[in-house]
Amino acid sequence: MPDTTWWSLSSALVAMEALASVAFALSGLIEGARKRLDAVGVCVVGGLAAFGGGTLRDVLLDRRPFFWVEHAGWVWGLIVLCIAAMTFMRAQHQEPTERAMQWPDALGLGLFAANGTQIALEASMPGIVAVLMGMVTAVFGGVLRDIVCNEIPKAFRDHRPYAVCAFIGGWIVVLCQAAQAPQWLALTIAAAATTTMRVLALLTGWTLPAWRWDRR
Amino acid sequence: MPDTTWWSLSSALVAMEALASVAFALSGLIEGARKRLDAVGVCVVGGLAAFGGGTLRDVLLDRRPFFWVEHAGWVWGLIVLCIAAMTFMRAQHQEPTERAMQWPDALGLGLFAANGTQIALEASMPGIVAVLMGMVTAVFGGVLRDIVCNEIPKAFRDHRPYAVCAFIGGWIVVLCQAAQAPQWLALTIAAAATTTMRVLALLTGWTLPAWRWDRR
Amino acid sequence: MPDTTWWSLSSALVAMEALASVAFALSGLIEGARKRLDAVGVCVVGGLAAFGGGTLRDVLLDRRPFFWVEHAGWVWGLIVLCIAAMTFMRAQHQEPTERAMQWPDALGLGLFAANGTQIALEASMPGIVAVLMGMVTAVFGGVLRDIVCNEIPKAFRDHRPYAVCAFIGGWIVVLCQAAQAPQWLALTIAAAATTTMRVLALLTGWTLPAWRWDRR
Repeated sequence: MPDTTWWSLSSALVAMEALASVAFALSGLIEGARKRLDAVGVCVVGGLAAFGGGTLRDVLLDRRPFFWVEHAGWVWGLIVLCIAAMTFMRAQHQEPTERAMQWPDALGLGLFAANGTQIALEASMPGIVAVLMGMVTAVFGGVLRDIVCNEIPKAFRDHRPYAVCAFIGGWIVVLCQAAQAPQWLALTIAAAATTTMRVLALLTGWTLPAWRWDRR
Repeated sequence: MPDTTWWSLSSALVAMEALASVAFALSGLIEGARKRLDAVGVCVVGGLAAFGGGTLRDVLLDRRPFFWVEHAGWVWGLIVLCIAAMTFMRAQHQEPTERAMQWPDALGLGLFAANGTQIALEASMPGIVAVLMGMVTAVFGGVLRDIVCNEIPKAFRDHRPYAVCAFIGGWIVVLCQAAQAPQWLALTIAAAATTTMRVLALLTGWTLPAWRWDRR
Repeated sequence: MPDTTWWSLSSALVAMEALASVAFALSGLIEGARKRLDAVGVCVVGGLAAFGGGTLRDVLLDRRPFFWVEHAGWVWGLIVLCIAAMTFMRAQHQEPTERAMQWPDALGLGLFAANGTQIALEASMPGIVAVLMGMVTAVFGGVLRDIVCNEIPKAFRDHRPYAVCAFIGGWIVVLCQAAQAPQWLALTIAAAATTTMRVLALLTGWTLPAWRWDRR
């Protein structure tokens, strides 16, 4: 049943991309709201966080149509999600916290890193480039979100492993493919490992080695 | 006379893109000058504001050549415009005001939103994607201008309808096309409606619903 | 021996791109370190500075594969360079200075401006567009570096000739090609002239004409 398998894999990739998009959209919504953007700004930052990394990957791979062009319903989904989230937050009178962003972000990180690496491998990229494309998919949505919000991207300055988790997750996909493992298994392991590493890093407060020239 | 009609439409699209480019270039010039950039910076910010949105749309649509490659004379035009504007402003000893940016900006917004949506429709994009492409054309020149000037994009934070006007204008183009209206009419109505909405929003001070969790 | 000549030219272009990449990577490393980014951030900013301008040029020209995809070894080279530089700077307990960035930057500017203009000419771009592409190659790596570091790009605000040098260097390539000069000569002259102009500008403190409306 190769057709069924292919269909399952293909729809598993779509489902992963969709789930990760929702997770990142929430992180963008929260950041936009914290920065007191207006309704349009919150939607755009949510959309950039959700679709920005994958779109940048597709531009770099010269791959068309984009996820959100092929599945244009997801753009409507994003708009509905933004309006619902804004209404909910207003009703709750709650200020979204920076911590609240971390969990959907960790989930999206794992899903996008595995998914983006796989897509780049299918475009015949060499291993290191495929891993970079996975990182771009996973990390640059958040980077664009932070650049629009006029901050140094959190991924590059918080000294917690973030892109590094995506980097390792990408290599898991590449190695599994080299080892002829089934694709769904490779994607599941890579996504789970990446998210787990990120969550552990958040919980244990483990930090990357930092510059110390100023603290002799 | 379909050929003549096509030619007129095509040149109308070019004329609109050119006029909108000049309007946005002025907004970029003024912003660059306000930020005390040097001559090169002012030209680049003017150029980004003028050509950035359309170029990003063309990259996303994988459409080549760019407007400013096909009509390379416009790059010279931009350089001449920048030098002339800088000389004029120096002669006037006038500090350009933020308000002075608003009117060319409103004109460019309407022209680019209608034009960008039309171009995306011609590339067979679905309605919502075409409207997004119109918004990208109209709004992201200014967004790039603000990002380079290290500000949160005005379009996302001033709580005045801006991208929303482009969004509505884009739908006018889509609906007119669905209703088989002549293209020149659709473009004119959409551009005029968008610019009018924006001007009204500026004059009346109407604002988008904002986040209120901090003002119980 | 046209094959040998072509090979030499082609490898000369690759060598120039590689050398300029290293120069810009160092400038990005130093800026990332000054901004106290973490190890990943320093690598990413170094990578953006090194490959960002050329990648943006290739996206605009719709040219694939990218330099760093075709020569994937260079990505490894960049990672090794970043780790080595970070280790070295930690060992030295030295804070990298802004001045230290200027010299590799000037070298990369000349090499990339000549190289980028040549590549755009080979893609049949008109002269002014080819020169712009050379400027994009040379300047936008640094612009992306500064945007990610949340600064107004130095290239646009320090009132020292920078993009202007790349602009003149690009025209040297275009004019040499029009005059049927050998390509290697054109590239060498243009790169040397650009770097020399930049170094002279730094040494003499020559500045671009500035806005003066505020200092009557």
